[in-house]
Amino acid sequence: MSILVIGSVAFDAIETPFGKTDKIIGGAATYISLVSSYFVKPVNLVAVVGGDFPKSDIELLQQHGVDTKGLQIKENEKSFFWSGKYHNDMNSRDTLVTELNVLGEFDPIIPDEYQDCDYLMLGNLAPQVQKTVIERLNKRPKLIVMDTMNFWMDTALGELKETLELVDVLCINDEEARQLSGEYSLLKAAREIRSMGPNFVIIKKGEHGALLFGEEDRVFFVPALPLEEVFDPTGAGDCFAGGFIGHIAKVGDTSFATMAEAVVKGSAMASFCVEKFGTEGVIHINQEDIQRRVEAFTNLVRLQ
Amino acid sequence: MSILVIGSVAFDAIETPFGKTDKIIGGAATYISLVSSYFVKPVNLVAVVGGDFPKSDIELLQQHGVDTKGLQIKENEKSFFWSGKYHNDMNSRDTLVTELNVLGEFDPIIPDEYQDCDYLMLGNLAPQVQKTVIERLNKRPKLIVMDTMNFWMDTALGELKETLELVDVLCINDEEARQLSGEYSLLKAAREIRSMGPNFVIIKKGEHGALLFGEEDRVFFVPALPLEEVFDPTGAGDCFAGGFIGHIAKVGDTSFATMAEAVVKGSAMASFCVEKFGTEGVIHINQEDIQRRVEAFTNLVRLQ
Repeated sequence: MSILVIGSVAFDAIETPFGKTDKIIGGAATYISLVSSYFVKPVNLVAVVGGDFPKSDIELLQQHGVDTKGLQIKENEKSFFWSGKYHNDMNSRDTLVTELNVLGEFDPIIPDEYQDCDYLMLGNLAPQVQKTVIERLNKRPKLIVMDTMNFWMDTALGELKETLELVDVLCINDEEARQLSGEYSLLKAAREIRSMGPNFVIIKKGEHGALLFGEEDRVFFVPALPLEEVFDPTGAGDCFAGGFIGHIAKVGDTSFATMAEAVVKGSAMASFCVEKFGTEGVIHINQEDIQRRVEAFTNLVRLQ
Repeated sequence: MSILVIGSVAFDAIETPFGKTDKIIGGAATYISLVSSYFVKPVNLVAVVGGDFPKSDIELLQQHGVDTKGLQIKENEKSFFWSGKYHNDMNSRDTLVTELNVLGEFDPIIPDEYQDCDYLMLGNLAPQVQKTVIERLNKRPKLIVMDTMNFWMDTALGELKETLELVDVLCINDEEARQLSGEYSLLKAAREIRSMGPNFVIIKKGEHGALLFGEEDRVFFVPALPLEEVFDPTGAGDCFAGGFIGHIAKVGDTSFATMAEAVVKGSAMASFCVEKFGTEGVIHINQEDIQRRVEAFTNLVRLQ
């Protein structure tokens, strides 16, 4: 039931109406692997950082049961760095800095020990790199989940579509689903995207929840939990993905029913994430916290 | 189990990306009373129209079991008229025309036969008029539900707050909840509004569903059904209110559990509304259609 996670491991500097951080650990693969480690262990990580990346941050991953053999360290280069500032509504943000650094030439090398992976999570990265990972695996995983973003739709649509043909589940947000499909109705958008390859489409609506679409126009909806405060949305989508694939790997099947449970788990993990800065919200929780949070989600829509 | 509905009965002219209408029947009390008539009969209506209002539209209400004894007809005046144009995303609109006409001096006269009402639905109107209705009832109804909008927060906040103290349930949308409470978090906003009077607050989020808040921070969420097309959102909030109070009146209790069921019914009725222009979506349905639609809502969040 091993999970292989590919994506960025990086520095983030975040500013929200509640405060700002210096460079802290961030990156899609960081959030995904930390969060999925609550469901299965080990989680195998393929990523790249520079010599500036602190050993203590790598140890943080290891302490959570993340295998870092696949984490390349380019001693003479710098780690990927992103800096952003959220607006007052927390739904939109400005990117202040994007320094690709090591990520610019990322060659995803899969350690032999990772070859038997059952569940592959392609965190947001250049679609060509995501495709390379799939091609380098000797056997196809049981399930391939892909995250992407509008940037790749704008700059690498052809490659994105080629990669899409190879995956089982695509996770994107509502605006991206509309952009990719050319359809405003999310029902139509999901249908169109499913015709591009993935059997399942998850459309994330941020504070408005998420929709899972599957075969025969099946739809499942999970709300977002109303929270006292949303402190920092960075990483929420990646935590969603981590909880999603983590639950599926733990249960070991890829039915619509299991995926529906998995989007609830993903939403629960995302809700922890946004309550604190960076990864803080998801590194100090335990199984009981997760169980209680999942119950809060199911209670939210439960009729007596 | 009688329902008394107060609000506008009016002409609307609507333009959406899908087409436009001439003056058609509209108004909060029209939608509310038509929709609640699927749950209980008769629904008693207090409203005012001008001599220009077609007899056929009044007959439409009567055919649905709406008692129009309380519908004042000012023969020498004109009916309230609103015209609006929706933007492409259907989430925002421009008001093109607002002619108050008869509504400017609306004196809500309650026929004696309406005095024993159990459930009072105050559709969106000047809060002073809403308050007058409550004062003119000889006995307090079991439940008073109030709808309002940001216009009254901007122009009659003091009167709005006085009326709020007298009601049990307030229905407003998310932006209005934030404006009224000064809180961005909807959890905090609902808590603040509940401290102003109503024991229950419903925050409508349009295509993102609705939240019911009650005592002891209880929360229930109902999603909006993903639809192939949203054709015309006019009246959706009023149809929600009609289904909500209709279900409560039918069941006959005002517990949180019944209110949670009622927001599902309200959402189902709103989903019919947006599929067609004006009232078209809610006048040709039957109990089986409603049952099927309610099941679609419960299936949407059901784990296997």
